[in-house]
Amino acid sequence: MNFILKGDICCCKSQKELETLKDGYLICENALVKGIFAEIPAECASFPVADHSGCLIIPGLCDLHVHAPQYAFRGLGMDAELLDWLEAYTFPEESKYVEIDYANSAYSIFADAMRRSATTRACVFATLHTPATMLLMDKLDRSGIVTYVGKVNMDRNCPDTLRSESADAAIKATDVWIRSTKDRYKNTSPIITPRFVPACSDELMEGLGALQRKYGLPVQSHLSENKEEIAWVRELCPQADSYAGAYDRFGLFGGAGAPTIMAHCVWSEGSEENLLKDNGVFVAHCPQSNINLSSGIAPIRRFITQGIKVGLGSDVAGGCHLSILRAMSDAIQSSKLYWRIVAHDDPPLSVQEAFYLGSAGGGAFFGKAGSFIEGYEFDAVVIDDSAIPSSNPLTFEERLARIIYFSDDSIIRDKYVRGAKIDLD
Amino acid sequence: MNFILKGDICCCKSQKELETLKDGYLICENALVKGIFAEIPAECASFPVADHSGCLIIPGLCDLHVHAPQYAFRGLGMDAELLDWLEAYTFPEESKYVEIDYANSAYSIFADAMRRSATTRACVFATLHTPATMLLMDKLDRSGIVTYVGKVNMDRNCPDTLRSESADAAIKATDVWIRSTKDRYKNTSPIITPRFVPACSDELMEGLGALQRKYGLPVQSHLSENKEEIAWVRELCPQADSYAGAYDRFGLFGGAGAPTIMAHCVWSEGSEENLLKDNGVFVAHCPQSNINLSSGIAPIRRFITQGIKVGLGSDVAGGCHLSILRAMSDAIQSSKLYWRIVAHDDPPLSVQEAFYLGSAGGGAFFGKAGSFIEGYEFDAVVIDDSAIPSSNPLTFEERLARIIYFSDDSIIRDKYVRGAKIDLD
Repeated sequence: MNFILKGDICCCKSQKELETLKDGYLICENALVKGIFAEIPAECASFPVADHSGCLIIPGLCDLHVHAPQYAFRGLGMDAELLDWLEAYTFPEESKYVEIDYANSAYSIFADAMRRSATTRACVFATLHTPATMLLMDKLDRSGIVTYVGKVNMDRNCPDTLRSESADAAIKATDVWIRSTKDRYKNTSPIITPRFVPACSDELMEGLGALQRKYGLPVQSHLSENKEEIAWVRELCPQADSYAGAYDRFGLFGGAGAPTIMAHCVWSEGSEENLLKDNGVFVAHCPQSNINLSSGIAPIRRFITQGIKVGLGSDVAGGCHLSILRAMSDAIQSSKLYWRIVAHDDPPLSVQEAFYLGSAGGGAFFGKAGSFIEGYEFDAVVIDDSAIPSSNPLTFEERLARIIYFSDDSIIRDKYVRGAKIDLD
Repeated sequence: MNFILKGDICCCKSQKELETLKDGYLICENALVKGIFAEIPAECASFPVADHSGCLIIPGLCDLHVHAPQYAFRGLGMDAELLDWLEAYTFPEESKYVEIDYANSAYSIFADAMRRSATTRACVFATLHTPATMLLMDKLDRSGIVTYVGKVNMDRNCPDTLRSESADAAIKATDVWIRSTKDRYKNTSPIITPRFVPACSDELMEGLGALQRKYGLPVQSHLSENKEEIAWVRELCPQADSYAGAYDRFGLFGGAGAPTIMAHCVWSEGSEENLLKDNGVFVAHCPQSNINLSSGIAPIRRFITQGIKVGLGSDVAGGCHLSILRAMSDAIQSSKLYWRIVAHDDPPLSVQEAFYLGSAGGGAFFGKAGSFIEGYEFDAVVIDDSAIPSSNPLTFEERLARIIYFSDDSIIRDKYVRGAKIDLD
């Protein structure tokens, strides 16, 4: 899989370093990035060239937190807060995925939307239903996008339709599901997924921790999203010294061999913040969801300064938009209000910093992904930004700002994941 | 101009009252709304019917604050605050409108975008250049949208290229411009437009107040957007007891015969808030701009509770998006953060309330506009929301929520202003 993309190339090599090259050549060799070149090197002279002159070529974007079964009701129920919204919208909808025909129809819509977006990698929540979850994995695998998909675990504080019969039953079903899926797909892998502490008994968490160690899988869940939720966790887990601690005591909070994503972290501070950092846990920053559900604004500048790993999540359907470009502008806008209203020592995110979070920042969870550094997996998106009319010539930074603020999927011309071209039709 | 639109009709009759009718008939008689009917009344049996079954039919939306010359650089320079952003982006761009060819090209793009949006009424800032401003008025008038357009007045604290030679010269030029345009157009009218207090000397404000009284025109300007700006106004106008007072002393702040729109009002309180109310001044709430320029969040719930008149503004290019549907979701989202972070006594705006602000709320500035109440001017937008796939049937409120949160102009099927159909191609 060797080829060359020609165009205006732009990526973050680090949080602070934007590399750009107008009319450059981005070379893919054996599904990996060989580099960005002003001239085609002699040894690549035989590679076919796709000419996208005038288009922006950026790394594929990474969505660290999205709920596939919630795509069906995105944009609805946004007048409620988290716990009420879960009861009124989320749980009733997720209950429908016991019906495989419903799941087939709804997950097709979701997988198509993911395929056509600028996202090339995603960490996805399904529901607790194994057949529907495997159907989703089939569809996502075929889409060509690289995904982790989680069968959701819940055994308390939820409707009967979504509650496993017992912790033991949930653990056994998850074990079977892991064995059925861990080597089944080219692009899709299972991820250990307790929904969140209020919905998981200690026994269930204990079992999930054991499964994590048995199979060495990554973990995803929710953390410190909403103040009522946090107070509830404090009641449910008096023995943990923070919400994070309630995962950590079961080995479900990062550390050796258990890379973990925690969504939200709106109210994380003190010992929880330290644990995020010490255990190398990824924060999936979901700014739009945190606004829609009136949760608040996560202190992302502070997390970054502390050296905590951060990526972006759409969190559909707490967030209405699947686009990680939109998540970038939401992250910038949230950080501006945080600076203005909450903490004047934490300056807002720049366009470049938000671009980093949505590409290389989240990409790090997947290994070498999200940038055009030599040896990285070749994920690239070609964007025809000439469709946004301008009376003036624009710099790379300005072009990036536009695609971020307008976040319009219709200007995506091509997408590659691990060197393979994705069908966008 | 008599006809009937058939579809799923939805409008606010008041702040708290959403009227809906599925498969209803919205009747236009002599360019006015006759009403919403379940069956076509006998006396209208001969009216032609446009069948939009399955589509939403909503009132035309109103943009109370938008800068036409800034459309060219929307999405850019968003890393700055107001005063730096004016210096670095806005003033250099506005200076270009001395060139009529540049204005012709850029204003064509703007007028086309307005025409194709869901907006049917707008209050528009141009620049201080008379020929370019008249060109903009020509284009907007031809678009069929109802607009007020302001030749901008500035005589201090701005680049030479945008500063009138003297207050006297500015006033004379504005007088000539008013006389040339006030009876020239079908859909477009002049509006008195001091840019903002920092850019207008007392002499200029005095003269604009006199012009207002001479011609009985409405007024538009900016108020209490940014904390540095407010401190600057305090220095410049020590005699005024608030920023609002600095307009009011010249008769440029509402009251008899001078309906006024003030954009932003992010930090208005106390006597200024009282003056807004007592003088019936319209607040143009521009939530996205207030976030992009890190200005803050306007206390819209408090304004509404006080009985202050409020509509929405896109404020392109402080806001990136011309869509008033987007302004509605931005308004909801801002109000959620305001409730969560600033004032827990001010509950967030609902979808219905935001819909009201962007239709009838702003429409009130134009007289009887923004609703389907009998006798109102017939502005309507037909939206084919079936283009947003859903696995479940949706209520009217849910359909509204979706078009607001997704704010996608591509699903607008038809638009009528004062009973005339607008060409959307």
